[in-house]
Amino acid sequence: MRTWSFAKGHGTANDFVIVKDRSGLLNPSVEDVQFLCNRQLGIGADGLLRAVKAEHMPDWDGPGDIWFMDYRNADGSLAQMCGNGLRVFVQWLMEEDLAAGDPILIATRAGLRQASVLPDGRLLVTMGVPTWMQVTGRVRIDGQWFSGHIVDVDNPHCVIHLASWAQLADIDLDRVEPDPSDFPQGCNVEVVVNHGPGRLSMRVYERGVGETQSCGTGAVAVACDDRGLTGDILDHYRVDVPGGQLSVRFDQSGQASLTGPAVVVARGEVILPDEY
Amino acid sequence: MRTWSFAKGHGTANDFVIVKDRSGLLNPSVEDVQFLCNRQLGIGADGLLRAVKAEHMPDWDGPGDIWFMDYRNADGSLAQMCGNGLRVFVQWLMEEDLAAGDPILIATRAGLRQASVLPDGRLLVTMGVPTWMQVTGRVRIDGQWFSGHIVDVDNPHCVIHLASWAQLADIDLDRVEPDPSDFPQGCNVEVVVNHGPGRLSMRVYERGVGETQSCGTGAVAVACDDRGLTGDILDHYRVDVPGGQLSVRFDQSGQASLTGPAVVVARGEVILPDEY
Repeated sequence: MRTWSFAKGHGTANDFVIVKDRSGLLNPSVEDVQFLCNRQLGIGADGLLRAVKAEHMPDWDGPGDIWFMDYRNADGSLAQMCGNGLRVFVQWLMEEDLAAGDPILIATRAGLRQASVLPDGRLLVTMGVPTWMQVTGRVRIDGQWFSGHIVDVDNPHCVIHLASWAQLADIDLDRVEPDPSDFPQGCNVEVVVNHGPGRLSMRVYERGVGETQSCGTGAVAVACDDRGLTGDILDHYRVDVPGGQLSVRFDQSGQASLTGPAVVVARGEVILPDEY
Repeated sequence: MRTWSFAKGHGTANDFVIVKDRSGLLNPSVEDVQFLCNRQLGIGADGLLRAVKAEHMPDWDGPGDIWFMDYRNADGSLAQMCGNGLRVFVQWLMEEDLAAGDPILIATRAGLRQASVLPDGRLLVTMGVPTWMQVTGRVRIDGQWFSGHIVDVDNPHCVIHLASWAQLADIDLDRVEPDPSDFPQGCNVEVVVNHGPGRLSMRVYERGVGETQSCGTGAVAVACDDRGLTGDILDHYRVDVPGGQLSVRFDQSGQASLTGPAVVVARGEVILPDEY
């Protein structure tokens, strides 16, 4: 029996268990992650954020005295980046007095990221330069095939435009199957309705999780897709998700940033079983 | 902003947030319960167990120095009794050194209940005398009407027999509508397959919650229904639920007891918002 300290938080209802592991000794197994994220048997979350000092991450070659965000999906798989998770991670670091300053630098599998607190308390995090592919991919949703552009936001996305709000509300994201010939590693799938310049509403299926209430890289993906389709006219998007509202901005070099709320809800100790 | 101590636990994957409120001062609102049980925004659970010394519960007229289990469904509504919750409640009381002995007496809205620990660590709790009604009620599930006997286990149940394991696996319990003329207050709905004497497999829809992985009063209801249909031949049932295995026994007077595991997984502090 192992007892770990944890916190739980969310950004626009995309929720996370956070574990501090300064020296990188906890080494959670796939089963540990699944347990912590299991909503009935464990704590429950869309993913796990493990905080490790970057110098203890063998593959990291950047500055060592910052925190590395080791993100895992609920099924235990690794993900390169998680935008909502990054905001929650920084909010938690600040509340624990583990990080301060403007910007706060965070190490991730997708590289160095910066976070700033806005006057209204929301957090802005940099998200790298997403890539809008010229090509489309196919995804089967509830038996029906859809096609959407592929966007790379350090993880693969397929952005599918729907015709109406009603279709957006009704589509069944419990049954999402990306075409394995287009997405050999799977992908996140965003279904989106454009309702005015820079105004997008989306729902999202996350690889390794299922439907979630929000996805930060997904919000960047749908904004990037809109820019791809229209020729980079706009540099600011409001993206409504079931769990709230996100903002996405692009600078001159195409670097994206994501702004939204982040909340730490609980702190405690969790008992992990020795065997699963 | 209010900070409450909490624990989280489950019995056969039916999970609960537990709050200690010795003097009955916390007085959680419907919104507080919904927040604590919200799986993305709060902690997440099928229901809340509030532990109050019985003397502080205005409507309780039994012994005052025992603990009262104030159970709320995830939607904030009151329920008379919750069998899995009762085991988790007692396990938590014992781990917190708040109760000991054999049996441990617990006050509930359904009256006095007794709990004992078995040598293998499982808990046995008394469940009162369930009543098998001669009458049936109607429930619409995913658009199709079913009929089942009504069983009163301090809360109303409708027990619907299915023809096969395949039907039990496939039926969509996200879409359950008890006929309001048969169940003006709603009801819990069990779908069940009998596979040998005293062997039942069930899935359950809980009023005020939705589908859960297990339901203690539901396990008693399906066993009571089998006794009603067969003329009280058996006094011991094994009930398989998605979240594990429960045992139901009946004594000569028809009093039921429920046996199963109970686990406390985490302890901590949760921050409740001032406004929802």
